[in-house]
Amino acid sequence: MKLYGYWRSSATYRARIALALKEIEFDYIPVNLLDGEQRRNAYLAKNPAGLVPALETDDGAVITQSLAVLEYLEDAFPAPSLLPNDAVARGHARAIAATLACEAQPFMNLRIQRYLKETLSFDEDAMTAWLNQWPGGAMAAAEKLVAAHGGEFCVGDAPSIADCCLVPQVYGAQRFGIDLSAMPNLKRVFDTCETLPAFKKAHPDIQPDAPKGNS
Amino acid sequence: MKLYGYWRSSATYRARIALALKEIEFDYIPVNLLDGEQRRNAYLAKNPAGLVPALETDDGAVITQSLAVLEYLEDAFPAPSLLPNDAVARGHARAIAATLACEAQPFMNLRIQRYLKETLSFDEDAMTAWLNQWPGGAMAAAEKLVAAHGGEFCVGDAPSIADCCLVPQVYGAQRFGIDLSAMPNLKRVFDTCETLPAFKKAHPDIQPDAPKGNS
Repeated sequence: MKLYGYWRSSATYRARIALALKEIEFDYIPVNLLDGEQRRNAYLAKNPAGLVPALETDDGAVITQSLAVLEYLEDAFPAPSLLPNDAVARGHARAIAATLACEAQPFMNLRIQRYLKETLSFDEDAMTAWLNQWPGGAMAAAEKLVAAHGGEFCVGDAPSIADCCLVPQVYGAQRFGIDLSAMPNLKRVFDTCETLPAFKKAHPDIQPDAPKGNS
Repeated sequence: MKLYGYWRSSATYRARIALALKEIEFDYIPVNLLDGEQRRNAYLAKNPAGLVPALETDDGAVITQSLAVLEYLEDAFPAPSLLPNDAVARGHARAIAATLACEAQPFMNLRIQRYLKETLSFDEDAMTAWLNQWPGGAMAAAEKLVAAHGGEFCVGDAPSIADCCLVPQVYGAQRFGIDLSAMPNLKRVFDTCETLPAFKKAHPDIQPDAPKGNS
């Protein structure tokens, strides 16, 4: 199994967490987003969408989109499960994952931030307002779901796909200065996750393509 | 089962298609997004995030986020399945669904379009450029996935969660004038879906909260 990704990509980070929680061995193939490697033919042959992550199976099939990668890993490697036993609780875990993956992260990734700065001439204040309105607003929605359904983790007392999405989201939010003061449940679960070896192993700062001295 | 939604909401439309494909009876409870009904207490008690759709089970549990609703319906009502049999093909179906739900639709929904117009003072040209860059760009990525994995439908020859997301996306893209000329596979699958009774039943124009004479 090969994971194509970038150390600081939130979506890649989600996949790394799931692989680590399931203790699946994989080769990590860095794709340098800053250099535009994702738009070169060698990578487009793997994922024509030019995005990371992409998971290549031992048979050469390539699964793209991090939510699909998480579900594929759950399908193909069911234990330990990253979904609750109960269908309704699974719904809550997937709702938290989707809130973060559909409504938070897409509004703060590298390419949208570049567009806002370069094409729409956003200054620092405009960017701060945008980040708190869109990714921040979606995280506030996730906070309510975690307050309602969470335990030690986002849903109940075991890590799920929701936590695979939460940790990279909080990592990115902290990096870009999104105000998390009204999100105590997200912060609490984040802190819990950060103590676990699987989440530590998946952390951006220790990936082979992270700049030396970043951590 | 109750579905809270809005006739023209793409995310609600996805859920209606899945319910219709699975022939599940449900009560449709309109939430008027133009009037701000989604931010009033009666609805916030169902979904604190203030978004549609929300699916309420007969036991009173509420599942939010359309991708989670689609997966919940698949979990709770497995036949007919809206996922392929093979794990890799399921990965492709979920990747297409996620491309549309995470990267296309959030960049063209009612609230972002309002923000672009009212807060960022977008004129018509700026909006057209935005729509073709972001939702249009994500649809171009979905086009490549459907070209690679599609048959009669987005993945293979049976409708899946990917098609539940594709049809509302193309409906919205046509409404807002996104250029689909380079997306023949999306248009072909859309046209096929539109001939099926389940997709017809889920169409926005015939929902009880659609303005009369809209269709």
